[in-house]
Amino acid sequence: MAGRRHITAPAGFRAAGVACGVKPGGREDLAIIAADRDASVAIATTRNQVFGAPIQWCRSILPRGCGKARGIVINAGVSNVCTGSRGMRDARTMAAETAVRLGTEPRKILVASTGIIGHRLPMTKIKRGIAAAAGSLGTRNDSAALRAIMTTDTREKSAVVTTRLGGKAAIVAGIVKGAGMIAPSLATMIGVITTDAAVAPSMLKKALTAAARSSFNAVTVDGDTSTSDIVAVFASGAAGNGRFTSGSRDHRRFAGALAGVCMQLARAVANDGEGATKLVEVAVRGARSDRDAEIAAKSVANSPLFKCAVHGCDPNWGRIACALGKSAAKVVPEKLSIAIGATTVFRRGRPVPFSARRVAKYLAGKTVAVTCNLGVGRAGFMALTCDLTREYVAINADYHT
Amino acid sequence: MAGRRHITAPAGFRAAGVACGVKPGGREDLAIIAADRDASVAIATTRNQVFGAPIQWCRSILPRGCGKARGIVINAGVSNVCTGSRGMRDARTMAAETAVRLGTEPRKILVASTGIIGHRLPMTKIKRGIAAAAGSLGTRNDSAALRAIMTTDTREKSAVVTTRLGGKAAIVAGIVKGAGMIAPSLATMIGVITTDAAVAPSMLKKALTAAARSSFNAVTVDGDTSTSDIVAVFASGAAGNGRFTSGSRDHRRFAGALAGVCMQLARAVANDGEGATKLVEVAVRGARSDRDAEIAAKSVANSPLFKCAVHGCDPNWGRIACALGKSAAKVVPEKLSIAIGATTVFRRGRPVPFSARRVAKYLAGKTVAVTCNLGVGRAGFMALTCDLTREYVAINADYHT
Repeated sequence: MAGRRHITAPAGFRAAGVACGVKPGGREDLAIIAADRDASVAIATTRNQVFGAPIQWCRSILPRGCGKARGIVINAGVSNVCTGSRGMRDARTMAAETAVRLGTEPRKILVASTGIIGHRLPMTKIKRGIAAAAGSLGTRNDSAALRAIMTTDTREKSAVVTTRLGGKAAIVAGIVKGAGMIAPSLATMIGVITTDAAVAPSMLKKALTAAARSSFNAVTVDGDTSTSDIVAVFASGAAGNGRFTSGSRDHRRFAGALAGVCMQLARAVANDGEGATKLVEVAVRGARSDRDAEIAAKSVANSPLFKCAVHGCDPNWGRIACALGKSAAKVVPEKLSIAIGATTVFRRGRPVPFSARRVAKYLAGKTVAVTCNLGVGRAGFMALTCDLTREYVAINADYHT
Repeated sequence: MAGRRHITAPAGFRAAGVACGVKPGGREDLAIIAADRDASVAIATTRNQVFGAPIQWCRSILPRGCGKARGIVINAGVSNVCTGSRGMRDARTMAAETAVRLGTEPRKILVASTGIIGHRLPMTKIKRGIAAAAGSLGTRNDSAALRAIMTTDTREKSAVVTTRLGGKAAIVAGIVKGAGMIAPSLATMIGVITTDAAVAPSMLKKALTAAARSSFNAVTVDGDTSTSDIVAVFASGAAGNGRFTSGSRDHRRFAGALAGVCMQLARAVANDGEGATKLVEVAVRGARSDRDAEIAAKSVANSPLFKCAVHGCDPNWGRIACALGKSAAKVVPEKLSIAIGATTVFRRGRPVPFSARRVAKYLAGKTVAVTCNLGVGRAGFMALTCDLTREYVAINADYHT
């Protein structure tokens, strides 16, 4: 089925998504995204100490987190984590099977897997899937490829941004999956970003690291940093722009486009958090340091009590104060102010009378913003999360091994 | 209504619980627990940087966390947190009103409050309640006093342990409230422990600190360390035992009895976590340090995904491995082993085949034990928690300000 183009919108990329029988019901569960020629690539991977064989494979072929690659093969249903040395062999086999069909070497193929932990990959099905996907690569399969990497996601999450570099039109596009087990530390869920811009690998890595901090790394659905998080960005160079230097206008433009794609994808992930009914932005200002700002914002964004209150449209700001205070960030109650939307409810240590009805109405919207000014410095951070609902519990109590 | 005796079981204590109109429906909401004479006292209080005026009051009268006191007054419904300087005046007034009725000074009266954050105490009702409670102190009101400190608790949680010190029978008894916003860092929820043993204040403080680490501080319902957590232990000395020295047999016996009461109360709190259907014990062994063991155990105990899996009786041990790996504790996948109940599911980095049906049946019980051996050291810790259910969300989305 043809759908909207996103990851093949930049010139030089093809994609495919097929059903190889790992997910039940004949749904797509294996994707390949391939560059026509070797492309610049940069990756950001999970900080979880228990990480999957695919993560290990990607780190082994890109020890500095960037280099040249031809594509990525992704399966959903089984994550190939906690599978011992056989898991690493299976990841290598996925790369090799893909490489031979793309006419390249295994070490030019990234691998990502998502799904249940502790199960071995059904390699016969996977190999058959790789053959089928490689045989159907094209520029009209973006939706199928995206559907193939989804697990409990309820929406297809993609983004496309255009820019101009050295007088040439360039496109940055991305897809992402992720709904639960999400609280990236370094990278996030599984995301693939493509661009036809010409960008050197090391510059691509720097731009990805910068963009990830305020986007993927700002998302927390449940505080559970996954064992399989990876974001990979490929740059084909087909746009024909000249190589740009660090700090140049083209560099800023490209970094801006990449950050824009990452932020759209990250917001989509938070918004599609398991069971979520709304997107919640928790901004912390006036923190002593960048690190304090992030810690404080994530402490609120991870508080089950706060997330339940948002779900119930309850302007119970005490739970925000509690979550800030329990964090390792420096918090001085007398200097703390809290606003829900545009309504200040706590100013420098004192409650402010407000219309609970009006704030409850605001909380009933699809996007909720909370701003906490710690009043002890100048650093800030915005965390992205969602509300905590009965459906989150239903999904995760009923998702059976 | 007379009920089972617990906090007045040790000689030298009286209690009362009355309804003063803060909780709706005429339910008890104010308690006094009083010693007949000045008693040794030790407290452990929350580590949250945003703490209530009652906590501030208790710290001001017991700057070293121990000393002499006559009793404690506790109200439920409004926590007197984030209430500015008026909150501190209200806490002092509660102490003064109680003191005058017990014939002592305000600085001999501890204060604790639990309930909504950011609202002022309705002091007219509170004063009336203090007068009524002080007038009805006795040794048959234990249940009323316990009910008065409860909020979303569904069960009365108390414990009584007897021991012998210097040839005399001595009793240690306690009550506790706490169901949500529970992840103590230093102390916990609100707990009051009484004993007729004669114990010096500093020794009482040491024994409380030791007992709290493996009991109250091991409990996490939702990771939200409250702004109002306090445990106070009073020792009347009415048992008539001679003062014992540090390290003596009597010291070990008393410490053991206190630890026993704390552990019973802590398990009751985890078991009565908001929406909980079962008690979950997460033991970590083989950690590099005590701190690593605690961090790792709590990372599992706080993982929403793990808690949902336990609720759904799903032997999805990958979520345990994920929660261990994301923690700051040292985890080496190849050295990690995991058991659910008596069934090892992951041994030194490799999945172990097991009967999913049998483990699911085990998970359906009222108490679930998970053991994680990190294999990198000798330290251990056991965290206490509960499952995460739709009811937790219902309670906290619908608990309105």
